[in-house]
Amino acid sequence: MSGNTLGHLFRVTTFGESHGPAIGCVIDGCPPGLPLSEADIQPELDRRRPGTSRHVTQRQEADRVEILSGVYQGVSTGTPIALLIRNTDQRSKDYGNLHETFRPGHADYTYWHKYGVRDPRGGGRSSARLTAPIVAAGAVARHWLAAQHGVRLRGCVTAIGTHELAMDDWSQVHANPFFAATAQGLDAVEAYMDGVRKAGDSVGATVYVEAGGVPVGLGEPVFDKLDADIAHAMMGLNAVKGVEIGSGFASARQMGSEHGDELTPQGFASNHAGGVLGGIASGQDVTVRIAIKPTSSIRIPRRSIDLHGQPAEVVTHGRHDPCVGLRAVPIAEALLALVLMDHALRHRAQCAGVWVPTPDIARG
Amino acid sequence: MSGNTLGHLFRVTTFGESHGPAIGCVIDGCPPGLPLSEADIQPELDRRRPGTSRHVTQRQEADRVEILSGVYQGVSTGTPIALLIRNTDQRSKDYGNLHETFRPGHADYTYWHKYGVRDPRGGGRSSARLTAPIVAAGAVARHWLAAQHGVRLRGCVTAIGTHELAMDDWSQVHANPFFAATAQGLDAVEAYMDGVRKAGDSVGATVYVEAGGVPVGLGEPVFDKLDADIAHAMMGLNAVKGVEIGSGFASARQMGSEHGDELTPQGFASNHAGGVLGGIASGQDVTVRIAIKPTSSIRIPRRSIDLHGQPAEVVTHGRHDPCVGLRAVPIAEALLALVLMDHALRHRAQCAGVWVPTPDIARG
Amino acid sequence: MSGNTLGHLFRVTTFGESHGPAIGCVIDGCPPGLPLSEADIQPELDRRRPGTSRHVTQRQEADRVEILSGVYQGVSTGTPIALLIRNTDQRSKDYGNLHETFRPGHADYTYWHKYGVRDPRGGGRSSARLTAPIVAAGAVARHWLAAQHGVRLRGCVTAIGTHELAMDDWSQVHANPFFAATAQGLDAVEAYMDGVRKAGDSVGATVYVEAGGVPVGLGEPVFDKLDADIAHAMMGLNAVKGVEIGSGFASARQMGSEHGDELTPQGFASNHAGGVLGGIASGQDVTVRIAIKPTSSIRIPRRSIDLHGQPAEVVTHGRHDPCVGLRAVPIAEALLALVLMDHALRHRAQCAGVWVPTPDIARG
Amino acid sequence: MSGNTLGHLFRVTTFGESHGPAIGCVIDGCPPGLPLSEADIQPELDRRRPGTSRHVTQRQEADRVEILSGVYQGVSTGTPIALLIRNTDQRSKDYGNLHETFRPGHADYTYWHKYGVRDPRGGGRSSARLTAPIVAAGAVARHWLAAQHGVRLRGCVTAIGTHELAMDDWSQVHANPFFAATAQGLDAVEAYMDGVRKAGDSVGATVYVEAGGVPVGLGEPVFDKLDADIAHAMMGLNAVKGVEIGSGFASARQMGSEHGDELTPQGFASNHAGGVLGGIASGQDVTVRIAIKPTSSIRIPRRSIDLHGQPAEVVTHGRHDPCVGLRAVPIAEALLALVLMDHALRHRAQCAGVWVPTPDIARG
Repeated sequence: MSGNTLGHLFRVTTFGESHGPAIGCVIDGCPPGLPLSEADIQPELDRRRPGTSRHVTQRQEADRVEILSGVYQGVSTGTPIALLIRNTDQRSKDYGNLHETFRPGHADYTYWHKYGVRDPRGGGRSSARLTAPIVAAGAVARHWLAAQHGVRLRGCVTAIGTHELAMDDWSQVHANPFFAATAQGLDAVEAYMDGVRKAGDSVGATVYVEAGGVPVGLGEPVFDKLDADIAHAMMGLNAVKGVEIGSGFASARQMGSEHGDELTPQGFASNHAGGVLGGIASGQDVTVRIAIKPTSSIRIPRRSIDLHGQPAEVVTHGRHDPCVGLRAVPIAEALLALVLMDHALRHRAQCAGVWVPTPDIARG
Repeated sequence: MSGNTLGHLFRVTTFGESHGPAIGCVIDGCPPGLPLSEADIQPELDRRRPGTSRHVTQRQEADRVEILSGVYQGVSTGTPIALLIRNTDQRSKDYGNLHETFRPGHADYTYWHKYGVRDPRGGGRSSARLTAPIVAAGAVARHWLAAQHGVRLRGCVTAIGTHELAMDDWSQVHANPFFAATAQGLDAVEAYMDGVRKAGDSVGATVYVEAGGVPVGLGEPVFDKLDADIAHAMMGLNAVKGVEIGSGFASARQMGSEHGDELTPQGFASNHAGGVLGGIASGQDVTVRIAIKPTSSIRIPRRSIDLHGQPAEVVTHGRHDPCVGLRAVPIAEALLALVLMDHALRHRAQCAGVWVPTPDIARG
Repeated sequence: MSGNTLGHLFRVTTFGESHGPAIGCVIDGCPPGLPLSEADIQPELDRRRPGTSRHVTQRQEADRVEILSGVYQGVSTGTPIALLIRNTDQRSKDYGNLHETFRPGHADYTYWHKYGVRDPRGGGRSSARLTAPIVAAGAVARHWLAAQHGVRLRGCVTAIGTHELAMDDWSQVHANPFFAATAQGLDAVEAYMDGVRKAGDSVGATVYVEAGGVPVGLGEPVFDKLDADIAHAMMGLNAVKGVEIGSGFASARQMGSEHGDELTPQGFASNHAGGVLGGIASGQDVTVRIAIKPTSSIRIPRRSIDLHGQPAEVVTHGRHDPCVGLRAVPIAEALLALVLMDHALRHRAQCAGVWVPTPDIARG
Repeated sequence: MSGNTLGHLFRVTTFGESHGPAIGCVIDGCPPGLPLSEADIQPELDRRRPGTSRHVTQRQEADRVEILSGVYQGVSTGTPIALLIRNTDQRSKDYGNLHETFRPGHADYTYWHKYGVRDPRGGGRSSARLTAPIVAAGAVARHWLAAQHGVRLRGCVTAIGTHELAMDDWSQVHANPFFAATAQGLDAVEAYMDGVRKAGDSVGATVYVEAGGVPVGLGEPVFDKLDADIAHAMMGLNAVKGVEIGSGFASARQMGSEHGDELTPQGFASNHAGGVLGGIASGQDVTVRIAIKPTSSIRIPRRSIDLHGQPAEVVTHGRHDPCVGLRAVPIAEALLALVLMDHALRHRAQCAGVWVPTPDIARG
């Protein structure tokens, strides 16, 4: 139960460290017969890839994925799909001085206490680089979800530090380096980000993801509710400190007569629930918002201790994202896809064949 | 994988419906030798019990717990601990009219679509009544955590609707009906709550829970991080729509030079992390905040549909909490205890015997 | 991972001790809509019940099962089904002297070393009494398997000590106290068993169980093969020391040209495989044979040690089965049903909708 | 729950097909600090390697293992250990004709019905080649078991077809091509095997494995007994049709006064139990015997059907083991190591710190 597997029926086990020879994952439980090749996965990895603008880490990784198993003649066979990504641009010397101390806000201190041994190069296992296999696995899941249920996923950055970003034009998301679903105010954000980077500092962000076309019924009471499993996946993403479903924290200030989404034959009248009622998908859009803390590795000197508990100063010189929140969008989408995929299989395991006379109003 | 079990090594499986003959749980994996009797569990149940003030549901349930197994001569034997609570005050006729329609904001609609059959009496399986076995199991966990590691858990309500509650006097928590850690402004809250109740409406709340004395090292990368598992447990609690760890959503507006908690030989200089770094406990207090939506069952008429998809009006007459957030405090503490307990066992499974020369600065 | 749960999707968690207040189980994952009442379960418990002839233990237990949850208006709701059986005929004084010593061949010694505490009354958790909840859960599984897939299960005793029993007339199984599928040679067996009992000794047995109508395709590579999970379930049954599938140990002496079952358009030409090829059901009868050791609790004095490691003599006076193998038949059937049920759900989770042009030759 | 993972705390997930680009596994849960390199794993793989004598398959695979993650500076870090073995000697054309038909006794028919798609080259996922990653993972487990608990594992072939092999000289096991723990009668076996091979037929075998030094206490009631999990692992090994613990099927013919191993201050007086009592290790040698069926792929023509259900004749020309039982010895040892390793971690998760005054008599 060492925690490196996500999902119960669509199970993704990742492996690898930032500066080891390779990273990757094994997907167990993929239904057979899904058309699949590297070309279905690579585009998602490319969206997450480092080095694509000056606002993200300058590490250059091709992140080429190789399918090692589970696919024969272009379709999944139902056996484990192993995905391999070789590391190519490790600059471990950047981390030489980190062997002896701990970065504030970083997993250095806790990994050391937990395991008594750690790979400090690039954060080792705790590196955000380990989200690449998650994105790869998520590509398989969203491929199946789209084919089987017409599920559509998308996401965007809604705030960078104190800069709020509108969500008024989804066509813009890939037209700017900030994953912003708007064309408004990006110049200000660009200047702001340049300032953060030049100061050697970093900044937080909020990210929004949603899934449309989710079949009513996905999710399990009492503990493995759909929203509970989404919260688990999202809070497990590096640097995430908060998760909201639907109206989220705003719900706490609402009255019941305002929050509860009314039902009509034409559909739900609102979506405060974020597509989940009692832990089970209602058929409305599943909406999620996450808070991402600023990157821990910064060039501004910070107080810390060394391996012997003595005071030390830490300055991180490696190549880091000044705002890890930016590249979180494709990862959060992938995580949402993985949770939905797992619940799609869980649901049909127990409830295949269930039929009710009530129309699914969310499908219109 | 039907989702009714929480935990991997300290496993709690609950059963029961609001108006069935009994509710309860089976705890599998409790270490042997823990002194345990009903008297260790009952006080926690009493804190959660309905009917204790006019601000909560008037259903009268003694919630007497019976230990059916796993304890011999006053200590746990290491075998499953089954806990049984008989239901005694069901008034199912209150729900007669709900057979034919769906309450807005409630699991009625989704259970129906998922299972094709549902027990509408008191919400059946989706009732908040099912948190009683969670509290009972949590009592066992906190008992062990206190004895083994000196872990201390506490919680309070920090906002009711738009009323913020200070957190300035923990001795007050059980001295008022609002689980408020303050003596300030309670008259206003009382009047506010009376107004909500008389209007037949309900209101949301936020709850804060923390655990002190958590051993450094608990938590697993990459997916089952301590905070990820806390988020899973909390978001799985009825009516929760948001979860924050440490600075939570405020982190998104912070700079790295502000957020990252500096380390000194005397301890961490701040706790923005909320006691978790890289998914692993740092030894600082684990701090969690959750948002709880207003109760779905209200007396104000709402639009809905019936089993055939036709328009219908819903008014709920049963006995309900006007603010489910109030009674959420002991439940959230119990969930936090269950997650910590599970991770304590997971940690020693893999890492028993690990020793490092670095002092645990959080322990002082 | 304390081991008290069987199954992944149809999950049975048992609880209780031989002389505690109650035993029972929680079934999580049962599909909704299955007609179910105590009357569907009780007959299976009655087949396993003690005290029915002089050849089994004289303990009198009504073994009345109560459904606590998961069933509403006569059908399963998809939520956990909790089953409770109160213990009524504990005679714990029979075990007074066993607090201080260990019975040869019994779990006394190992439980003591594992847990440091044990409930010695009637064997506590290790008692064969704990097979009652397994039989109860198995009744639910076989009920669904019969309704959904037409699966038929049956079993019999094929040897008692050195007495081999023919398998030539299945109508006899419930017409004699030995679960023998024959009317031949029962007088000799009866005399033999009387001798064993009067001598205060016990004797082993072999049991055969089979399932017909199992859908082709059930079972998972590589580790959770159908036969692997059957072996797990059967070897976990008290006193079992060996498990065979199909030709079993006889396969080791066969040639490939003899063992491999040929396929014809009219069906398989033989069934050496026991209905499983590569871990996956072929559609032929799944056939299993298990070896059951003689009861450990006997009246003949045996050498042992006490809690301090000093020599001691042990004589067991409680009420025990002289041949536990007899009552193993309904239990082994129940275990086979539970494994098949779990795999039926696992299969449809991953492979629902798979279609091949090749006829299923085992169905004829 | 697609079944490609073994273990709960020491989890091994394998991937790959016989003729795909690579096979391998991910080990999650290995304790940190274990000295480990490829040199600790390769020797075990070499013992299992094909092409080492004329009595095994002539396929030439170097089976070079590469550690991709989880090891830093020569010790395990506690993060997942990924092991990769590239396939190098695929001759897929040998299998061309098998696309259209099913080999008797082989998984061809069942994979096809289960998944609707299959990789027929070399048996695809069902190939015995997939035992290589198991052996590699087992090497890690036995390495830890030896270092931590002094556990010693060994195994041998005890029968080939109708030829029984004595177990009188363990030094011989690696001195002959039959994994025989004897120097007696090997000429006859050699001649016998030559005959089988020349006839284009195959033959079954029995294999014995044992583990010494197993700590008392390993194993979990009620379902995941140590022997149950051993049976699961062994029956999951390709071609295994029977599993015995201790006296196995002979127990069924014994009396209780013979079978139950007496305890003395100097140790157990016998080991009919095979080192497991009530599912928990007694500290005696854990002894296991398995029956392995003859290889399904033979050159003798057999009746079968084609993909359309029409009669067909099958002759297998690929390179196959005339007796798969031979190479099963290192695999069975590996599986036993994996089960013991998993239970060692499970035991300390729940029972770390348990102490009893009773001496462990099995340790002498």
